[in-house]
Amino acid sequence: MRSIYSSIVNHSPPMTQTTWTRRHILSLATFTPWEYNTVLQTANSFREVLSRRTKKVPTLQGNLVTTLFFEPSTRTRSSFELAAKRLSADTLSFSPSSSSLSKGETILDTAKTYLAMGTDIMIIRHKQAGVPQAIAQEMDRLGTGVQVLNAGDGHHEHPSQGLLDLFTLCRVLNPQNPQLEDLAGKKVAIVGDILHSRVARSNLWSLLTSGASVHLAGPPTLLPQDFREFVTNPELQSRLHLHWDLEPALAGADFVMTLRLQQERMSQHLLPSGREYHQRYGITRDRLTLCHPEVRVLHPGPTNRGVELTSEVMDDPAISLVSQQVTSGVAVRMALLYLLSGSLQ
Amino acid sequence: MRSIYSSIVNHSPPMTQTTWTRRHILSLATFTPWEYNTVLQTANSFREVLSRRTKKVPTLQGNLVTTLFFEPSTRTRSSFELAAKRLSADTLSFSPSSSSLSKGETILDTAKTYLAMGTDIMIIRHKQAGVPQAIAQEMDRLGTGVQVLNAGDGHHEHPSQGLLDLFTLCRVLNPQNPQLEDLAGKKVAIVGDILHSRVARSNLWSLLTSGASVHLAGPPTLLPQDFREFVTNPELQSRLHLHWDLEPALAGADFVMTLRLQQERMSQHLLPSGREYHQRYGITRDRLTLCHPEVRVLHPGPTNRGVELTSEVMDDPAISLVSQQVTSGVAVRMALLYLLSGSLQ
Amino acid sequence: MRSIYSSIVNHSPPMTQTTWTRRHILSLATFTPWEYNTVLQTANSFREVLSRRTKKVPTLQGNLVTTLFFEPSTRTRSSFELAAKRLSADTLSFSPSSSSLSKGETILDTAKTYLAMGTDIMIIRHKQAGVPQAIAQEMDRLGTGVQVLNAGDGHHEHPSQGLLDLFTLCRVLNPQNPQLEDLAGKKVAIVGDILHSRVARSNLWSLLTSGASVHLAGPPTLLPQDFREFVTNPELQSRLHLHWDLEPALAGADFVMTLRLQQERMSQHLLPSGREYHQRYGITRDRLTLCHPEVRVLHPGPTNRGVELTSEVMDDPAISLVSQQVTSGVAVRMALLYLLSGSLQ
Repeated sequence: MRSIYSSIVNHSPPMTQTTWTRRHILSLATFTPWEYNTVLQTANSFREVLSRRTKKVPTLQGNLVTTLFFEPSTRTRSSFELAAKRLSADTLSFSPSSSSLSKGETILDTAKTYLAMGTDIMIIRHKQAGVPQAIAQEMDRLGTGVQVLNAGDGHHEHPSQGLLDLFTLCRVLNPQNPQLEDLAGKKVAIVGDILHSRVARSNLWSLLTSGASVHLAGPPTLLPQDFREFVTNPELQSRLHLHWDLEPALAGADFVMTLRLQQERMSQHLLPSGREYHQRYGITRDRLTLCHPEVRVLHPGPTNRGVELTSEVMDDPAISLVSQQVTSGVAVRMALLYLLSGSLQ
Repeated sequence: MRSIYSSIVNHSPPMTQTTWTRRHILSLATFTPWEYNTVLQTANSFREVLSRRTKKVPTLQGNLVTTLFFEPSTRTRSSFELAAKRLSADTLSFSPSSSSLSKGETILDTAKTYLAMGTDIMIIRHKQAGVPQAIAQEMDRLGTGVQVLNAGDGHHEHPSQGLLDLFTLCRVLNPQNPQLEDLAGKKVAIVGDILHSRVARSNLWSLLTSGASVHLAGPPTLLPQDFREFVTNPELQSRLHLHWDLEPALAGADFVMTLRLQQERMSQHLLPSGREYHQRYGITRDRLTLCHPEVRVLHPGPTNRGVELTSEVMDDPAISLVSQQVTSGVAVRMALLYLLSGSLQ
Repeated sequence: MRSIYSSIVNHSPPMTQTTWTRRHILSLATFTPWEYNTVLQTANSFREVLSRRTKKVPTLQGNLVTTLFFEPSTRTRSSFELAAKRLSADTLSFSPSSSSLSKGETILDTAKTYLAMGTDIMIIRHKQAGVPQAIAQEMDRLGTGVQVLNAGDGHHEHPSQGLLDLFTLCRVLNPQNPQLEDLAGKKVAIVGDILHSRVARSNLWSLLTSGASVHLAGPPTLLPQDFREFVTNPELQSRLHLHWDLEPALAGADFVMTLRLQQERMSQHLLPSGREYHQRYGITRDRLTLCHPEVRVLHPGPTNRGVELTSEVMDDPAISLVSQQVTSGVAVRMALLYLLSGSLQ
């Protein structure tokens, strides 16, 4: 942990006993409780920084954070770039529209070009699962000190989204000192297109590790029967439940995570229409009466109002955590950049 | 007014008697003379900063200025982003090409996402009139402290352009201490597509408030008969004149503001061609002999040389104010960001 | 030379005898040995800065560097923008996609708009040769202090690429103190599409000035017979050799510079196919046995693996200088921005 850390936290850090050693954040599948809690506590410190008038710390001054977004995403890239700027890093941004890829260059060569320019941390999004891992392996093979952060790869994982969702949930339960253990025994429903969702996969790891029970609900075409084989650990598997109907997933739930419905799934005839989806799986105020009285609803955004959830639900600050997820996103991404950069010291 | 203000001005500020309270800059229709003069004097201070070798002040350090340009514009966005950077703010930029809008998200949700990321000032351009106001109302309804700046909405208004034009005019008349009153009694001709011009609408408010007389000239299809009803104040109305011919508008004019001719108006058959337009309404050196001997010509850019005005006019530094408008733009936008940010203190 | 210079170099600068006076960098055709060496030594100082943890110097704080890339290029623009950021300059970036050009504005008017915004250094890429020079002439004619840097104009020149290649070569020969004279008597082969390569043209000037002998090799359609008339100085001409076959160019070569093969050349039937090109002109480990035992290979990127050179060659750190070229690019561009900015003092 770098010495400058003390300047950005107001409490004595409880993670001084050990140090962050993970070089790349590619998946939450192997995250340890200590790692989750280190991210949560670091993010909480940065959330305090973000509430100040001057929301900037010099932690990564002179460092170069590069976003390689082979699949475009204004929202996620803005969040990462802002996190980098808040830490005073310089940023470079590669976007496919003005891409050298069209010129025949391989993805690894693009990454190596930005490596050679002096990139310290590389944030990668690609529509194909495994690309961030392949780049991380190449960076290690070359003996570089570069860290790779997966910002979404195909249907595989979106770890920073999983961590910001976790942070958002734990802060509801324990605003001063959010911890993974806060979620133990809680019921979390994840509703929608589980099959194609990297967000669901990342959330699954963090939620099951926390001791929560997870109920997945969605149309049969978007929720394969063998999904439970994904989690081989029997103890974790016992807390994972699948439903074709929404009601048993919602019953008594503490949190409902809605997933974004991709328009293209409908054109692939995996779904009849947004309207029909809403009739069976849309989150309404009525259906929320099935849940715990203080249930909170999440959505990774951007939302299709009236499809995944009603405007009434989304705009009710007593229920919706959508805005808090976005705010948490900047704090969590600052924490990840900070921890990765610290892993080099 | 913030205490840091004293560090960026060389003279004792004459606006210490009162403070800037306007939260959003959406329209010039309700701007008071004090507000115009506060913008002019603040911009003049920043213009002095911009003439230094190091053109940067720390005023907005740690603040986040986001440009949401639903209608693209490199020129205006560059000007705003530069103004923000000169004030040491961080900037985020949303552009429609890589937009979440294509993903079904509403404009308000896009704005709320950038709000949740920590945006302090939001600069909005949209092809539909009223969008910046709708976003401002939502920001207020939510109790956020976010300020909204209209960077052009449909045919409605483009207040920062109106203010930079005002600043440019007043600096011609009074370089050391530009004031709204400098324009009293001056004749200003506005020539071109008045009907579709948000620039003309914003200029109308500032010019009429200053005491100038305003002469609008353009083709009948682009200059509706009932335009005077737009200004209901009889005193202002008495100084507003409409002409289908160019000559009476130019006669004795102190300033000629040319408007950009949109190519698409021709395809809509509102105009025959650029050539015919130029023959009747193009500003030439010859036609300028009708004006005051020291007449100056403005254009908001980008110009169609040989259509709205000849290259001879545009490139004559004794006549053309086009470059000074661009330079003024950065200073005026710094002033607006500064004043809006100060309104929170 | 500005006084701040002493803070970024560790050794006493040998160029204190004289000062940098070139206002624009448009071509290497008239570069003097002193200018080459000043760039090499300044870049070497910045390379040292770039190896520090905090890779930033305050040299250009408050200055505005604008990239006007009428022809898109992520790689080169990233390199220039990073160089500007490392020097603490502000950057603005104009890209043709969201261009005012589509609105009928001339290139010179676009440049003048960014001039009026306060640009100090303008970096220009255009598919047409001569555009950067035309803009530089206009900037001088207007009496502005703006410096123009050609980032590639048509088939004409790409001086920063030529200088970064020179820096890369000289650092191989003399890592501590790279100088133009290090290349005297060396044999450099340039292989590929010489005809259309601005990189080759810029390299030709620096290499011939250094005293190296240059052997150009490529298909007859891409290597015109009269190319030697390009260099009129007889002493330089005596060290320039043209070959239709690869072998005589490689024989004993100290360095092999491969050029990027543009896909569009094939569609113009100037080339049969990438495969056929590779069979006759591709750089393989086998063919490199013709060269000096310590031969090094360069490529300006992005590479077509298996066309201009094999992956085996490109990925061998004992042979390939491709990554070092990219790294050198940032240092050399920092040096150019620094020297241009110093020329104003």
